[in-house]
Amino acid sequence: LLKKSEFIALDAASTLSGVRQRFSIPDGVIYMNGNSLGAMPKSVGDSLSAFVEKEWGQDLIRSWNVNGWYVLASQLGEQVSRLIGAAPDEVIFSDSTSVNLYKLVVTALNIKSQRKKIITDTDNFPTDLYILEGVAKSFGRGIEIEVVDRKDVIDCIDRDTALLTLTQANYRTSELYDLQEVSKAAHRQGALVLWDLSHSCGAMPIDLNGANVDLATGCGYKYLNGGPGAPAFLYVAKRWQEQIDQPLTGWMGHKAPFAMSADYVPAEGITQMLTGTPPIASAICLREGLSVFDGISLTDVRAASMEMGKLFIELTDDLCRDYPLSLVSPVDGERRGSHIALRHENAYALMQELIANGVIGDFRAADIMRFAFTPLYLRYIDVWHAVAVLRTILETESWNKPEYATRAAVT
Amino acid sequence: LLKKSEFIALDAASTLSGVRQRFSIPDGVIYMNGNSLGAMPKSVGDSLSAFVEKEWGQDLIRSWNVNGWYVLASQLGEQVSRLIGAAPDEVIFSDSTSVNLYKLVVTALNIKSQRKKIITDTDNFPTDLYILEGVAKSFGRGIEIEVVDRKDVIDCIDRDTALLTLTQANYRTSELYDLQEVSKAAHRQGALVLWDLSHSCGAMPIDLNGANVDLATGCGYKYLNGGPGAPAFLYVAKRWQEQIDQPLTGWMGHKAPFAMSADYVPAEGITQMLTGTPPIASAICLREGLSVFDGISLTDVRAASMEMGKLFIELTDDLCRDYPLSLVSPVDGERRGSHIALRHENAYALMQELIANGVIGDFRAADIMRFAFTPLYLRYIDVWHAVAVLRTILETESWNKPEYATRAAVT
Repeated sequence: LLKKSEFIALDAASTLSGVRQRFSIPDGVIYMNGNSLGAMPKSVGDSLSAFVEKEWGQDLIRSWNVNGWYVLASQLGEQVSRLIGAAPDEVIFSDSTSVNLYKLVVTALNIKSQRKKIITDTDNFPTDLYILEGVAKSFGRGIEIEVVDRKDVIDCIDRDTALLTLTQANYRTSELYDLQEVSKAAHRQGALVLWDLSHSCGAMPIDLNGANVDLATGCGYKYLNGGPGAPAFLYVAKRWQEQIDQPLTGWMGHKAPFAMSADYVPAEGITQMLTGTPPIASAICLREGLSVFDGISLTDVRAASMEMGKLFIELTDDLCRDYPLSLVSPVDGERRGSHIALRHENAYALMQELIANGVIGDFRAADIMRFAFTPLYLRYIDVWHAVAVLRTILETESWNKPEYATRAAVT
Repeated sequence: LLKKSEFIALDAASTLSGVRQRFSIPDGVIYMNGNSLGAMPKSVGDSLSAFVEKEWGQDLIRSWNVNGWYVLASQLGEQVSRLIGAAPDEVIFSDSTSVNLYKLVVTALNIKSQRKKIITDTDNFPTDLYILEGVAKSFGRGIEIEVVDRKDVIDCIDRDTALLTLTQANYRTSELYDLQEVSKAAHRQGALVLWDLSHSCGAMPIDLNGANVDLATGCGYKYLNGGPGAPAFLYVAKRWQEQIDQPLTGWMGHKAPFAMSADYVPAEGITQMLTGTPPIASAICLREGLSVFDGISLTDVRAASMEMGKLFIELTDDLCRDYPLSLVSPVDGERRGSHIALRHENAYALMQELIANGVIGDFRAADIMRFAFTPLYLRYIDVWHAVAVLRTILETESWNKPEYATRAAVT
């Protein structure tokens, strides 16, 4: 078991230790919730000031051209493309993950128009499941959604499967799918595969092209540090772009939006996945989030995150062994994403007390605490402190407070 | 014809003259493009600073609760409700106008499930037409879109019409539909009516409840001054809320988003129209845009705008009578929205030269210049100056420059 001084030494030796300076981290806070809302890059302040003082405030409508608002969606797509192993013209930012899922699922059904089945797993992120329900309900071709256990996913894919759609890193347990292997299994049956990368993009190297992935989307505000409600990205492999046929055909996806023609003619390539006017202030925050990755290797980020997770598990096993805490996530770092979930019957109260003591993770119903390991701004010593605080809370039972008896709306 | 001094006197006498102080208007600029992107309320600066320094930067994930991010969508809905004659629980902000149109059109088709026809007019805003195409294509029930001439709209509504959808103020000509009369005509045939208020909300009093309107949406970044790509609102009349059945069923529209249940159970009322996580930085800008309307009467705004438009037409008629400029908008202020369109075969070059001389309107293909009259920040004297500049440009033919020969992408 490492000693406190050894955690400090790990920080000193880390190739990423300088990166934390690029983020705003409040004093006294150990922020372990980057899987839900990434911390704020300091450059957001200057960028939003420029937005206020120059772009919107002075240049007004001209900013669409002179300050690049008009090309932000594709510029952001280019920025993220190297983080997910895609070509720059295969990715664009638009809307929310939920809306993008709808566009991509319908696109897949239109490409595989002879097939009726969509397969996903029971523990997919809820909005993914809800959007599939929405597609099945509104898309009039007798589409069936099969929601199956994780272990049965591959066996369920058959010649009637149009699409397999999964989230790479489970939002609750953190368990990872093997992107390459599962994509291959879908392709063997002639099905398309759509990955939701919300809980993995920005946290680890992803190689969409290498795994021959057809379609993907992912959240801008978790590991990409794009700010609350940042736009989400859409990826469509080059080979399918000629066959895109998506239903939310708004003017930003038109070949010539300002020709104001009455008929919809899709733009070339990935641009036709756009719908309405993008929220520029939020897109500017996202640009800063993505810029943090300039010069950074996701291999380093991933290695540090796995190491932090391993140390967290070891320390918790040791310091908290007398308490009914259990590990929900895989022990093997290669098999989990960048957060770790612990189960405790009083998880809600425990997490409230952790937050009150400066350790910010989050709670997921019914009994799970999540802790994210984001080496861009989390230090090894933070991991040590977090477990020490957890231990004290368990020992003193300080979580047992009447105000924690009722659950608030927590995101 | 009023003299320059009389324009100054009109400003001095205006009940709205103090409101301009709440906006950032660059020196030397006469901003007549509020129909495309509203000017920036100065309070946006402080609000975004608070977002950076406190909300995201310090409170991080906790801001969803402690800084009200979670309730912003409905809070903004309440703010706009009084501007459009709706009850606070009939309106919510979400996504873009385009995405909202999709949700509302499908909702209408589900309510009127025995009917197959949607009627709109040929000169509707392009994204409205494109979204209708998208619905018809993806909604598998043989839906027919009838795109008819403005004058034929009412006659075309029949017992097979599920929905009539129109934009209240024409984006090009500014011509207004009579909201009440046209809604009544749709209802006589048992059809629903969906209004796009993008080019009218915030510019004039609108009474959705008074006109018994079923569904509506509208843009946040034009007359509502919510900033580029601000979220758009959705209105569903109380009487239809029990029957909402919309396809973009994301987690924010779920009855209990954080219960993370596998099945979609819609939230009560208008909240079920939400889909994904809202872009908070952009929503904060919009909140400031809507706050400007506190204590302001839209009747006053409308009266001043009509008067400015009347003076603009009179001055143009007089000063520019020797040039081939024609009025596209109705002369009668009651029949037009808050912008005026002029036709000139060199409209693009003329508008570029106007902008170069500090008069910012915009160009719409093929030959239209648009000028918006937004008395919250536009002064009567600005109208006088704008026409004087236009006259000089026409007289000196300074618009006839090689660099204006090619059209840039202008929004």
